[in-house]
Amino acid sequence: MIEAFEKEELRNVLWDIRASQKTIGFVPTMGFLHDGHLSLVKNSVEKCDFTVVSIFVNPAQFGPNEDLDNYPRDYEQDKKLLENAKTDLIFYPEKESLYPDGFSTWVVEDKLSKVLCGKSRPTHFKGVLTIVAKLFNIVQPDFAFFGQKDYQQLLLIKKMVKELDFPIEIISCPIVRESDGLAMSSRNKYLSDKERSDSLVLPRIIFEIEKAFQDGESNTKNLISLKDKIISDSNSKNVKLEYFEILNSDNLEPLDKIEKSALVAIAGKCGSTRLIDNIILK
Amino acid sequence: MIEAFEKEELRNVLWDIRASQKTIGFVPTMGFLHDGHLSLVKNSVEKCDFTVVSIFVNPAQFGPNEDLDNYPRDYEQDKKLLENAKTDLIFYPEKESLYPDGFSTWVVEDKLSKVLCGKSRPTHFKGVLTIVAKLFNIVQPDFAFFGQKDYQQLLLIKKMVKELDFPIEIISCPIVRESDGLAMSSRNKYLSDKERSDSLVLPRIIFEIEKAFQDGESNTKNLISLKDKIISDSNSKNVKLEYFEILNSDNLEPLDKIEKSALVAIAGKCGSTRLIDNIILK
Repeated sequence: MIEAFEKEELRNVLWDIRASQKTIGFVPTMGFLHDGHLSLVKNSVEKCDFTVVSIFVNPAQFGPNEDLDNYPRDYEQDKKLLENAKTDLIFYPEKESLYPDGFSTWVVEDKLSKVLCGKSRPTHFKGVLTIVAKLFNIVQPDFAFFGQKDYQQLLLIKKMVKELDFPIEIISCPIVRESDGLAMSSRNKYLSDKERSDSLVLPRIIFEIEKAFQDGESNTKNLISLKDKIISDSNSKNVKLEYFEILNSDNLEPLDKIEKSALVAIAGKCGSTRLIDNIILK
Repeated sequence: MIEAFEKEELRNVLWDIRASQKTIGFVPTMGFLHDGHLSLVKNSVEKCDFTVVSIFVNPAQFGPNEDLDNYPRDYEQDKKLLENAKTDLIFYPEKESLYPDGFSTWVVEDKLSKVLCGKSRPTHFKGVLTIVAKLFNIVQPDFAFFGQKDYQQLLLIKKMVKELDFPIEIISCPIVRESDGLAMSSRNKYLSDKERSDSLVLPRIIFEIEKAFQDGESNTKNLISLKDKIISDSNSKNVKLEYFEILNSDNLEPLDKIEKSALVAIAGKCGSTRLIDNIILK
């Protein structure tokens, strides 16, 4: 496995890969890898000739009072996991090489980015789209892999790729969960034992909603109202919901009634840790 | 010369060009070509194996009360000129294929884009950067050619390429002028005979400033004050200056005194036609 710390190193390696007509798969991450990330890597290794994983905690997608400084990092552990997963190249750049002094060019989206997580994190998706556009231009992959856990991010990246005409195919991969149902996240590490058990109210809500939908309920107000009983039954005092919405899964617009499919998206703070989860109803 | 009207047609042609290790040069234009555009094409043909010219009147870079609907167009004439200039491929897409319904992803810049033309045209550079990013992703050139007449645009595109890591080298080409000194522009066509002769006050101002600088004046206030006499001597009643500034030519910040080099930039309305011009003092 090759390690590249500078853009130029990476570009030199990939130049040869591309010249030999090999396909390049790309998995951008912020490191502190879990099985969710590794499932993306596995998908890339299966589909592509050469797999690049980037590890970069992107300051531009954190708000001023968010957890940038505390975001968990463990490069040596990540390296082992990626080596085992048959990654061909890790790209691990410094902040200064991606955001030089005076940086002022951004990719923004002004519809889908305004709802759900965009409401409480108004600059988050600007930071996400900008770093992803940069990494796409640096790596120039044929395929890029993103997890459905960050569903809104996935939708925004697909929209950016289509609207800015990146010659890249986005592959979305299912949420990977802990055995008890909690969606994997690098931020789960922050949770105390009590918070960790309380956090299960998030997957419990979305799976109960899924069950009710499968049992025939398609009115979104009725489905959303089910959450109150689940929350009080759960006695999960540490969890404060930020949003819980059922939306059109293509354009994130409100839905009165689910016709074909819908996104059920939830976010909440568990202690001081912000967690998100979602499910697509079909 | 190949004509491509759809992105897919263009990509198919360029795929083969790239596979044969040829270098691709790109000249994005809004058509109604003049010798300024053709000098860019000539530079590309000399430097690159394969030259692509796009013709697209980009609606996103026009403000609500600007001249989008009247912007001059003559595809058949442009085609002849490009054929003569040894262009390899014209890309002439429809608006709908570049801006599909619901388009909402933009490239923005929040420093250099706020001064000079950005003051009176607050959404102009957002439109420019977005279309250029799109065309870069569609054409994927090795080199792209831009004229110095749109100096602020050139600086912003160079900044975008650097900050979003496009693997493209930007080549800037000198302003091409009519024999009487007016900088070539597709918009010169709008001018009546009287406006056309009045418009010469713009190049007159910048060349007089250049002369004063070469004669030893480096205080920007003194240089700027010279314009009043030139304007009153010119008796060019049809011209209303929008801005006239002497700035740091790298970051467009104000300058009290010219040390090494400076941008002299001017914009004005001649009748209802907006004209710009500039010169770099060294």
